[in-house]
Amino acid sequence: MANYKLLIQYEGTRYNGWQRQDSTDQTIQGKIEQVLSRLYGQSVEINGSGRTDGGVHAIGQTANFKVGKKEDQFSTEEILQYVNAYLPQDIRVMSVEHVDERFHARLSAKSKIYEYRIDRGRVESVFDRRFAARTEGTLDLERMRKAASYCIGTHDFKSFCSNKKMKKSTVRTIYDISFREEGQILTLRFHGDGFLYNMVRILTGSLIEIGEGRREPEEMEQMIAARERGAAGYTAPPQGLFLVNVLYPEK
Amino acid sequence: MANYKLLIQYEGTRYNGWQRQDSTDQTIQGKIEQVLSRLYGQSVEINGSGRTDGGVHAIGQTANFKVGKKEDQFSTEEILQYVNAYLPQDIRVMSVEHVDERFHARLSAKSKIYEYRIDRGRVESVFDRRFAARTEGTLDLERMRKAASYCIGTHDFKSFCSNKKMKKSTVRTIYDISFREEGQILTLRFHGDGFLYNMVRILTGSLIEIGEGRREPEEMEQMIAARERGAAGYTAPPQGLFLVNVLYPEK
Repeated sequence: MANYKLLIQYEGTRYNGWQRQDSTDQTIQGKIEQVLSRLYGQSVEINGSGRTDGGVHAIGQTANFKVGKKEDQFSTEEILQYVNAYLPQDIRVMSVEHVDERFHARLSAKSKIYEYRIDRGRVESVFDRRFAARTEGTLDLERMRKAASYCIGTHDFKSFCSNKKMKKSTVRTIYDISFREEGQILTLRFHGDGFLYNMVRILTGSLIEIGEGRREPEEMEQMIAARERGAAGYTAPPQGLFLVNVLYPEK
Repeated sequence: MANYKLLIQYEGTRYNGWQRQDSTDQTIQGKIEQVLSRLYGQSVEINGSGRTDGGVHAIGQTANFKVGKKEDQFSTEEILQYVNAYLPQDIRVMSVEHVDERFHARLSAKSKIYEYRIDRGRVESVFDRRFAARTEGTLDLERMRKAASYCIGTHDFKSFCSNKKMKKSTVRTIYDISFREEGQILTLRFHGDGFLYNMVRILTGSLIEIGEGRREPEEMEQMIAARERGAAGYTAPPQGLFLVNVLYPEK
């Protein structure tokens, strides 16, 4: 049995998210599995590090797949060339790596980095129209920083989860939230051990509401404590969100 | 007579360049004139700082237009709102400014800044597929820097002009060529008093050939001296080129 790790980049605009679905051909996982299955002449399934929603982008998504000893006839370079030759241009496999049999893109992941880009310009930037969310009002960064500080650490983030039927633990650890300004684009960077369904987008929506002055920074504490989706802010739209990096323990 | 200066951003991918043409509706100038003519209820013509080719982008193109006293009934804010409401999403007017009657976007321009983006990655970046040119080989930056140094100053750049029937002077001054690396993207930045037809793209093509080792840095001097298109390198493709900024004298 051979195990391969893929580093994947995609523009999510045209897709119904990462996860394969019976109802649509337009998923990232589906597209990659199709090409790999063609290469190996048999059905190949890949494990992503996690799902991304429709419209969400990835700079460094990861996945792994296994093939039997008999089918393991291609080098990592051959796999890379083949998949990129057949994948649509808005999905690219950036690298293919032979990994230990125990490696699993989701289960082995130690932490993840997401970025959310906000276009604060008076007129929206042409080049970021698919890669940032718009805000109407001005954002007070100091208020946002203060609110973000309440999120750092281990908390029950149930208020920031869109999945109402979530049965598993909603406790997560956020290591860091940082802010970066480049021209009219404000980028929020989230580093955590894992994120719930829509968690980064709801955190961002809440931070935007606070930055715009519609809520107080201190309310972030109450939003977390409520453990209720209704207590938190709105879900910021998908096009601003990027899965930047999935981190694994050093070998 | 009122004179207005526009600051314009566009993604050139879908367009046949800046200049209005009878044969196509898909030009930047044409689109903006259409909307302004509708606003004023009469034909409005704009002067761009210069043409850009099909597929070339602009972060800070400038243009100006004049309207008679009678028609001058809209504030700069009203003009901005109106044009952006009716322009396609890949063209935005970033600002509208009332300027002196003598201001002319092309004739008053003092200098221009262009950038050319090159994707050197082993696999091309998904997000730069419309905003960078690809190179196959590795680029030696030191060779490129050395070659670029021969271009600085006032020279006859006839070898770097695609217009064979160019009757006017082909002498231009390049103030600076600088290089910036961000991940797999290499950006060449050109600052000059003006650029000939395709000049930035031919300079870039020549620098790429030198960076790849197909020509020597010293050959740049001979390319300039030849005053013949055939002596210089290839014309790098349009999608990597950005008109970044048009500079005017301080008022």
